[in-house]
Amino acid sequence: MDTSWKNIDYLLDGIKDANRVILARAITLVESLSKDDQILANELLNALPRPTSISRRIAVSGSPGVGKSTFIESLGMQLANNGEKVAVLAIDPSSSQSKGSILGDKTRMEQLSRHPNAYIRPSPAGETLGGVARSTYASILICEAAGFNHLLIETVGVGQSEITARQLCDFFILLLLPGAGDDLQGIKKGIMESADLLFINKADGPQSERALDTLASYKQALHLYAARLDDWMVPVLTGSAFENKGISEVLQNINKYFNGHESFLLQRRSAQLQYWFRNFLEERIKNFLMGNEEAENVLIATTRKLESGAITPFEASEQAFRSLVELAQKNA
Amino acid sequence: MDTSWKNIDYLLDGIKDANRVILARAITLVESLSKDDQILANELLNALPRPTSISRRIAVSGSPGVGKSTFIESLGMQLANNGEKVAVLAIDPSSSQSKGSILGDKTRMEQLSRHPNAYIRPSPAGETLGGVARSTYASILICEAAGFNHLLIETVGVGQSEITARQLCDFFILLLLPGAGDDLQGIKKGIMESADLLFINKADGPQSERALDTLASYKQALHLYAARLDDWMVPVLTGSAFENKGISEVLQNINKYFNGHESFLLQRRSAQLQYWFRNFLEERIKNFLMGNEEAENVLIATTRKLESGAITPFEASEQAFRSLVELAQKNA
Repeated sequence: MDTSWKNIDYLLDGIKDANRVILARAITLVESLSKDDQILANELLNALPRPTSISRRIAVSGSPGVGKSTFIESLGMQLANNGEKVAVLAIDPSSSQSKGSILGDKTRMEQLSRHPNAYIRPSPAGETLGGVARSTYASILICEAAGFNHLLIETVGVGQSEITARQLCDFFILLLLPGAGDDLQGIKKGIMESADLLFINKADGPQSERALDTLASYKQALHLYAARLDDWMVPVLTGSAFENKGISEVLQNINKYFNGHESFLLQRRSAQLQYWFRNFLEERIKNFLMGNEEAENVLIATTRKLESGAITPFEASEQAFRSLVELAQKNA
Repeated sequence: MDTSWKNIDYLLDGIKDANRVILARAITLVESLSKDDQILANELLNALPRPTSISRRIAVSGSPGVGKSTFIESLGMQLANNGEKVAVLAIDPSSSQSKGSILGDKTRMEQLSRHPNAYIRPSPAGETLGGVARSTYASILICEAAGFNHLLIETVGVGQSEITARQLCDFFILLLLPGAGDDLQGIKKGIMESADLLFINKADGPQSERALDTLASYKQALHLYAARLDDWMVPVLTGSAFENKGISEVLQNINKYFNGHESFLLQRRSAQLQYWFRNFLEERIKNFLMGNEEAENVLIATTRKLESGAITPFEASEQAFRSLVELAQKNA
């Protein structure tokens, strides 16, 4: 494989020019699990020029089939046509199984992918969620350094990936379908509570009326939540991304949020910085002590003793810990 | 404080005699966060005599107000009257805030607490969930060494504490109320799926009929799940712990499960051993590198740099990691 492009200056220049090919290479580098690549990636990330203005990081979530790609294309096209620079990223921990179930197929955002103001990054395959979070965060920084001021982050509406998305974005949009209750849509209470906007998609044709009922019940449900720290009244909108219906209203609300909560957003970004610092540090510590063959052998040997009944899990963790520290000191 | 009782032989003798005072002291020791106590606790746990027969570890979960204490008292009394030795423990990560919201008040299990075959341990206060899991597991081993062959583990029906309970028990009972749907009862799908028995409590008086409807809908809901690895058909029962109604049926089902799934139960115990080994090991590693003042200072200094914008979270985690390893090597 040609690795001549693995050069910080080459990558930095390409990122500054928003060169799509080099952008893709830089993201491939930060996604790589190889140790050498990760060292280079950290160097690159640290050398990135700071963006001249604060970007808008917007996450879009919802159950499979709710129409996330169509929504992102419709919203992204409006932004791009307004002259904004739009990058689309994905958090998809399932992609290792499904071989890239979201964003994998660029044709799903056909118009947007050809727009000169847009860049779509297919979701990386074969990673753990920890790795996905890390590389999505790195991709955000790279795209921002390349001048993209709107980051649209697509995420599947399941478990930990939404928490990750929430910690990576400024504004969280939850897509819903007309008719189904939130229990049926698999929406967790925590996610509902942390959404900044609800959009009931596919409110077209015979579904339009059901969407209004759904709208009413979600509006009511939101009243049950405690007032938010940012005093934002979460809008519940209906529309159809496929017909570009309701997307302008979404955009208006996004603008309203970003133009009225500057200090809150800065605080949130600062909290996110700390969250990811701790998160990456814990991962780093675990990898240091457990991410190699010798360490794996320690764990296997201890597990064998544990299963024989010779030691309790308490003693097993102590013994393994001492062996791992010895190993780490030997290899340091 | 008198610490003369902190002696392995004294504690071991008392545990073998099922001496309630010494049992309480041993559990206090394993709950202690002091470093010296933890070393002694590990020694004690490793020296515990192995129980002569396999115990039954039964977790009881459900939302606040569902009647967990009353259910445990009723079930525990039947077991104790049958000559079984019953220990009651709690997993209650909220107790630090609520000052022991469950089991704190022994009078709630008045009869059972006076029964010669029973031992009730109030829930520990002021711990993290990680600490609660660790000390509950240790308490299980101590009670088993003391001859208790039925462990009833009460847990509040929220989040991580149920996952912890599931990993500590052989049989998981979920309590429900008549009438309310599982969305309203705050039951997560994962918990519903991992329950071995559902009991609709408070099915008395005017609620009896509603309980039958609830029973029917939960039976139907369970049909939607994939077949279980142990081929167990999860029973859904109604009753009233307060009136001792339905508790015999619960007991029959427990017996049926334990007498028909021996090899599955052994496999599960083995998987649990490994789960806790890894879990304790990760905690141990984190404490080693982060659990002291010098380490805290490293984190604070790095956070300051991070917030100034001088470094990214990627670089911050690398820098903090290198400083922590140096510290650990210095102090090793």
